[in-house]
Amino acid sequence: MSDTFEKVMELAKRRGFIWPTSECYGAVAGFIDYGPLGAMMKRRVENIWRDFYVIQEGYYEIECPTIGQEAVFVASGHVKGFSDKMCQCPHCNEYLRADHVAEAGGVKGASVMKSGELEAAIAPCTCLNCGEVLGKVAVFDFNLMFKTTIGPGSQRTGYLRPETAQGMFTDFTRLLRFYRDKLPFGAVQIGKSYRNEISPRQGMIRLREFTQAEAEIFVHPNEKNHPKFARYAGYTMPLFTAEAQEQQGSAVTTTMQDAVKKGLIANEYVAYYLALTHQMLIKIGVKPERLRFRQHLCSERAHYASDCWDAEVFSDRFGWVETVGIADRTDYDLKAHAQQSGTSMSVFIQYPDPKKVQRRRIIPNMGVLGKQYRQKAKAIFAALEHAEPTPDGADVTVDGETIHIPADLFEVRDEIVEIRGEDIVPHVIEPSYGIDRMCYAVLEQAYDEDSADGETRTVMRLSPAVAPVQVAVFPLMARDGLDTIAEEITHTLHARGILAEYDDSGAIGRRYRRQDEVGTPFAVTVDYDTKENRTVTLRDRDSMKQVRIAIGDLPDTICALVAGTFSFASLGR
Amino acid sequence: MSDTFEKVMELAKRRGFIWPTSECYGAVAGFIDYGPLGAMMKRRVENIWRDFYVIQEGYYEIECPTIGQEAVFVASGHVKGFSDKMCQCPHCNEYLRADHVAEAGGVKGASVMKSGELEAAIAPCTCLNCGEVLGKVAVFDFNLMFKTTIGPGSQRTGYLRPETAQGMFTDFTRLLRFYRDKLPFGAVQIGKSYRNEISPRQGMIRLREFTQAEAEIFVHPNEKNHPKFARYAGYTMPLFTAEAQEQQGSAVTTTMQDAVKKGLIANEYVAYYLALTHQMLIKIGVKPERLRFRQHLCSERAHYASDCWDAEVFSDRFGWVETVGIADRTDYDLKAHAQQSGTSMSVFIQYPDPKKVQRRRIIPNMGVLGKQYRQKAKAIFAALEHAEPTPDGADVTVDGETIHIPADLFEVRDEIVEIRGEDIVPHVIEPSYGIDRMCYAVLEQAYDEDSADGETRTVMRLSPAVAPVQVAVFPLMARDGLDTIAEEITHTLHARGILAEYDDSGAIGRRYRRQDEVGTPFAVTVDYDTKENRTVTLRDRDSMKQVRIAIGDLPDTICALVAGTFSFASLGR
Repeated sequence: MSDTFEKVMELAKRRGFIWPTSECYGAVAGFIDYGPLGAMMKRRVENIWRDFYVIQEGYYEIECPTIGQEAVFVASGHVKGFSDKMCQCPHCNEYLRADHVAEAGGVKGASVMKSGELEAAIAPCTCLNCGEVLGKVAVFDFNLMFKTTIGPGSQRTGYLRPETAQGMFTDFTRLLRFYRDKLPFGAVQIGKSYRNEISPRQGMIRLREFTQAEAEIFVHPNEKNHPKFARYAGYTMPLFTAEAQEQQGSAVTTTMQDAVKKGLIANEYVAYYLALTHQMLIKIGVKPERLRFRQHLCSERAHYASDCWDAEVFSDRFGWVETVGIADRTDYDLKAHAQQSGTSMSVFIQYPDPKKVQRRRIIPNMGVLGKQYRQKAKAIFAALEHAEPTPDGADVTVDGETIHIPADLFEVRDEIVEIRGEDIVPHVIEPSYGIDRMCYAVLEQAYDEDSADGETRTVMRLSPAVAPVQVAVFPLMARDGLDTIAEEITHTLHARGILAEYDDSGAIGRRYRRQDEVGTPFAVTVDYDTKENRTVTLRDRDSMKQVRIAIGDLPDTICALVAGTFSFASLGR
Repeated sequence: MSDTFEKVMELAKRRGFIWPTSECYGAVAGFIDYGPLGAMMKRRVENIWRDFYVIQEGYYEIECPTIGQEAVFVASGHVKGFSDKMCQCPHCNEYLRADHVAEAGGVKGASVMKSGELEAAIAPCTCLNCGEVLGKVAVFDFNLMFKTTIGPGSQRTGYLRPETAQGMFTDFTRLLRFYRDKLPFGAVQIGKSYRNEISPRQGMIRLREFTQAEAEIFVHPNEKNHPKFARYAGYTMPLFTAEAQEQQGSAVTTTMQDAVKKGLIANEYVAYYLALTHQMLIKIGVKPERLRFRQHLCSERAHYASDCWDAEVFSDRFGWVETVGIADRTDYDLKAHAQQSGTSMSVFIQYPDPKKVQRRRIIPNMGVLGKQYRQKAKAIFAALEHAEPTPDGADVTVDGETIHIPADLFEVRDEIVEIRGEDIVPHVIEPSYGIDRMCYAVLEQAYDEDSADGETRTVMRLSPAVAPVQVAVFPLMARDGLDTIAEEITHTLHARGILAEYDDSGAIGRRYRRQDEVGTPFAVTVDYDTKENRTVTLRDRDSMKQVRIAIGDLPDTICALVAGTFSFASLGR
């Protein structure tokens, strides 16, 4: 089965995008190395993410450790609930994900089944490893967090974080102060997360160690209109709503403004980040026709989330792959941490104008009360504050004993008090990106074959925005001073921050092919005319067309082509 | 003891550089969070590192997982030997590093003592935690790697990597192919590493999870002259050699060329990266007078290293702190992995001209031998190849039996053969940087107090190259259109990739103070004159001087000031 997956992974290995980890010792499933070109491409994808979230949105990045103490993941629910249902094949002893076994056996809805149901469902299914029929096997929970010990003497249990999000929640009070106690604000994190998958078999799609980019945006629960919504109000894209899925319908293309108005999307914040995500995925090179936004069904949505969407990218091998998740997580996370840690995680919201509120105050006659009730007087003072007085007096409970206080021992005053504001727990909007899945989507969709010089040409049609090498520089011959000119051009481009690769080895056609295969979008060739008139040829990877251009114009031209501010086609004119 | 450490860490916490990790649950020693400004500063430090190693040197970055399988760390020696000597206080039960206890008790050379010696040495010392005299306590080895399990059912032991280096070694054969089988080449990695320190008490200096930037440069064992040595040959800096340390001498200031010539530094490669490191540390803001390069003494140098230097930065609190290590690790790592994995880790080096070598070949008379020795004939053929013939014949050993083969059953030919090259195991030059220690050094050295407007001013004199916020933009008043102009300026600067922060809250003096405290090097103020003539004031953090400048000139001016291509002082002229 030599599908695009096979071809692109073969190329990725051979040319230095993706390598099996510590291959010389036998690679371990669920881990990959980014080779020289892969790491460069991944960095570019991450920096495009930063352009959107850090520069455009103004959400600062923070960096928390990947090892966390147990209490954090008790609060987040991961210690108790972050597990997959597992079974073991009685024939080959392989551990398997029970829901994957069931799905492969044609069982529907396996991902939401309980252990008992799954046991019944998988009995007639075959092992994904050895192919034997499983029969009656136990299904049990396997926690997906990697566990370790911090310090000597088993002092403390630590976990490798299963998501970067928790760092933004546990830092909430410090972040709030950094943003001067005002909502909305956001913080982001790009870094490693870890899930000890049971039996990962999907290359870059299901990794045990992966890179996440997450934003946590803290908003007022009653103010979910994004202040910059105008930016994406008219943005149009297809939405595959829960309702459409339930009714076997299809995605509907609409503007974000209409989607919010019609209630397809819960609020402007969620809609804003759906559109931003669409724009970003297109920018890194995902084709619009292979991208859809699918709303979670009620059955798959976390109980606390008020809305949740996945950006799914279509893969020839894996079908629709969840690549980004965007959720309104309400106040679930902050409340959980506030309760577990005993730290308040609320924001004092000042009213535009103080509110005047009528309040009944009870003022005890301290002298008389003190004399009459002695040691109990203090407790009675306190209890009276919350008492419900009648014309007859008030009953208070002190140490379990009900005491009647006659009406002449206190005074009731109705007062107007001014309230400046209230403490509220913010809601959290969370766009969460799987960087490795984005990188895989980019590689798979860029892979292409066409023909050049009568031969099949393999070409990675990477967007110039993410291509690892941005321009190749060739001397036609590695002599007669052509090599020196080409090296000078390379240095000049480096100084402008462009990754230019000098290559003088082999026939010029072979050199073009080498660069086409790693997706280098442009190539400069220095030839004998260059010595006469200081011009070079500039070649476009996709059209294979060439134009002649002055050496002095190269840096600005390449920068603009890479930034996408103008196209190669407009150069020839 | 309110030294600079206390002051700078208080500021770092309050303003969002460095925060205790998951503070609401009680921070765990050895972990820190980089807050919004700290993470931004760290990113700038990392990118300066990349400018030097990836762009200037041309060594591609790779990215390997932080979890590694056991075999990797068996080969590297970490499973067996990566441990500290530990003891437990019998009074308070705290675990302690035995060498630290001894050193605090005035014992010299504790770091190289064996367990028995240390037990004797620490008996009269006091516990670093409770202060009681320890008495006779056991000293034992504690392995510093964090351990975990990969997959369900305790299938595989995994370790969190204690250094990024091993990834470059295990990827050696793939890297070699990527660089088209030619030496020298290099690969780098920036990422998290982990050391389960026994009882870390030094803030950012001794972390259990930290960021390393390491380069592994693979060179021909006999060709340790750096091809671009000219770049740093004349670079002058102080070197504190092993000999000078042994003779209680001091550092000697010399050029790199002389240092290599005189044998102070082992070779050009090591010298080149010493100079590059000096240049980089100065660039991020380390003061030359607080920086020294100290050669390892024989007793502290790893047995396989042929030369090793530490860049040490002086801290008010911690004294001289090892921040960068630069070593010639010879072929130790590649040989260890080749042996453990059974994979060849050598390079075929072609001779400039093939060498002609005389070789004796023994050609058996197959027909006669075959008939005479039947089943043994094949083994005898093979054994004859390596036999030492005499005129009388040759003795060969087959299955433990010595057989005499008469001289007439083979022919001896002396031939001239051509050898094209040889397989060699490259040596490794390793510059290894502690990013967190670099960040701490930058923060500590930037901290300053002077006076402004008759009050004490706290100012972080961060180099513009690493300052998180690069320019502040203030409208004098948040009205009359001044705010709109200031916001436009902010956006224009963002579009140029400059981190500009808009602030309109409070008196202008207070706003300057806030920015001074986080090290923002420049501030733009929009005032009423701006509306008349489209000029603003540009203020320099350090001198507090202001110049008037046209709005249109701002982006280029700020870019140049941040890049350091011209100085604020030259603006006023």
